Amino acid sequence: MTIVVTGAAGFIGRALVAALLERRPGAEVLAADQSPIEVSGARAVIGNIAYPQFARALIDRRVDTVFHLASLVSGGAEQNFELGGKVNLDATRDLLEACRLAGHCPRFVFTSSIAVYGGALPDPVTDDTPAAPRISYGVQKLVCELLINDYTRRGYVDGRPLRLPTVMVRPGSANTAVSGWASAIVREPLAGRNYTCPVRPDTRMACLSLRRTVEALLHGAQLDGERLGWDRTVLLTGIPVAANEMWRAVQRHAGGRALGKLRFEPDPVVQAVIDTVPRATRSQRAASLGFAHNADFEEIVLEYLETLT
Amino acid sequence: MTIVVTGAAGFIGRALVAALLERRPGAEVLAADQSPIEVSGARAVIGNIAYPQFARALIDRRVDTVFHLASLVSGGAEQNFELGGKVNLDATRDLLEACRLAGHCPRFVFTSSIAVYGGALPDPVTDDTPAAPRISYGVQKLVCELLINDYTRRGYVDGRPLRLPTVMVRPGSANTAVSGWASAIVREPLAGRNYTCPVRPDTRMACLSLRRTVEALLHGAQLDGERLGWDRTVLLTGIPVAANEMWRAVQRHAGGRALGKLRFEPDPVVQAVIDTVPRATRSQRAASLGFAHNADFEEIVLEYLETLT
Repeated sequence: MTIVVTGAAGFIGRALVAALLERRPGAEVLAADQSPIEVSGARAVIGNIAYPQFARALIDRRVDTVFHLASLVSGGAEQNFELGGKVNLDATRDLLEACRLAGHCPRFVFTSSIAVYGGALPDPVTDDTPAAPRISYGVQKLVCELLINDYTRRGYVDGRPLRLPTVMVRPGSANTAVSGWASAIVREPLAGRNYTCPVRPDTRMACLSLRRTVEALLHGAQLDGERLGWDRTVLLTGIPVAANEMWRAVQRHAGGRALGKLRFEPDPVVQAVIDTVPRATRSQRAASLGFAHNADFEEIVLEYLETLT
Repeated sequence: MTIVVTGAAGFIGRALVAALLERRPGAEVLAADQSPIEVSGARAVIGNIAYPQFARALIDRRVDTVFHLASLVSGGAEQNFELGGKVNLDATRDLLEACRLAGHCPRFVFTSSIAVYGGALPDPVTDDTPAAPRISYGVQKLVCELLINDYTRRGYVDGRPLRLPTVMVRPGSANTAVSGWASAIVREPLAGRNYTCPVRPDTRMACLSLRRTVEALLHGAQLDGERLGWDRTVLLTGIPVAANEMWRAVQRHAGGRALGKLRFEPDPVVQAVIDTVPRATRSQRAASLGFAHNADFEEIVLEYLETLT
């Protein structure tokens, strides 16, 4: 039995592959990415997901579950529209088509995003909030959700799209996400580096720790599909944390570390984008399906500190 | 100046091309379809919209407005998933990409459909009803709406997607729409042919006459885009008419014609599909933007009778 992970060299992908190797010891884990992946135990496949042949070559009838994580995230897809279309739309469709043509209805876990929300948003965003994306990345994610629902209804895949909040704490090599500052507030000072935060101190963000995210992906893959109903998408709960609360939590848990300094210098462009994204998400549906969220931001900081030692 | 109409040989396409030739005498009307089109005054271009080169070749910088009507409709897209994806998704994307790369932001009028609605629906469906498609055709139309919004936001096209109710009265050569019976109730008896209606007499349908549909497309093209806001899609009002009401209206207006007989013999499969589509749509937004709907079903029958004489 094979489990495919796309975007396997990414922030979430690496942690997911490691968890799969531990939890599903009998399975072959196929770790696909354009960057080299060094995980002993997984079979690394290097290629560009935007190249249709590559996407299709990942799927055959031995594939039990696809975790499709590969994305060009918010800022990147906004800046490079063509590449965003290739990676975020075409690659998903190529994978879905490969699954359909393989004919065995594999499970298809997809990392959607709270970027599907936009405009005047309720606080928190809930299961009842309509998706209304205002950035290309959000449009592309929503389109994939719709296609996965249709492929699922037709019995081509067994889809499980999850709308992820901001996943914390990203390591140094930042991707193109507009939410990058949230991770940096924790990561940079703890590494002894000064950081200038481009948003106001009271700016809140819907947060989920990396470990909880990986647990959600694994849980999403294991769930009985019938429980999801016709709309397979599940919004995950992201707890609201303000930038200055993040910073205080870091200070509380710094221990003996010499912290870098934090300065707030709001960038109007970044602030304007961030002000349009959900500040918190609360999903009754996720809770009733057994998805867990973080208790508080302390938990997120402590989880990150563990990875540093 | 060039106006492109895709699906120009179809039921709505033919009427639209005729109206454009009359109303926009200075413009070159490019009538694209896979079937031959004989309209003097328009430039016919024969080709398959599912062939990317064809779609792209329709667009250059002289194109002022694109009316993208070509579709594989509900029943057809449900039956032939691959072709539905090609015609309803890829072709729209090819046209949008061609517009983007031409770089002059043409107007893009798109025939979406009330097939974007599904599940337990309010009666009537209104501007507030969330789209939740349960058939591939509806998914594909909704995806196109989302893409058109994004292309519009980015300044690549000036999009105007219209969600059409059931457009009446289709001529003899039925397409693959599951709503085909509604037109047949009027058309067949008036042609002296017997017709067996596959739904219950009380089955209601959201109806819009062909002439009103063409007016809506022309109005949609002329509207100031700013008035549409960020979500460019407009639901059109379709008046609710039950199958037996349609039949009574036909009888009232038969004049000297020898009517064919109508018999109701509900087909559980057809009835089940039809029971999931909107029975009526009422759009405040369409009204305030100046889109007109039919006063009653009489108007629809009388309009059709005019075309027969």
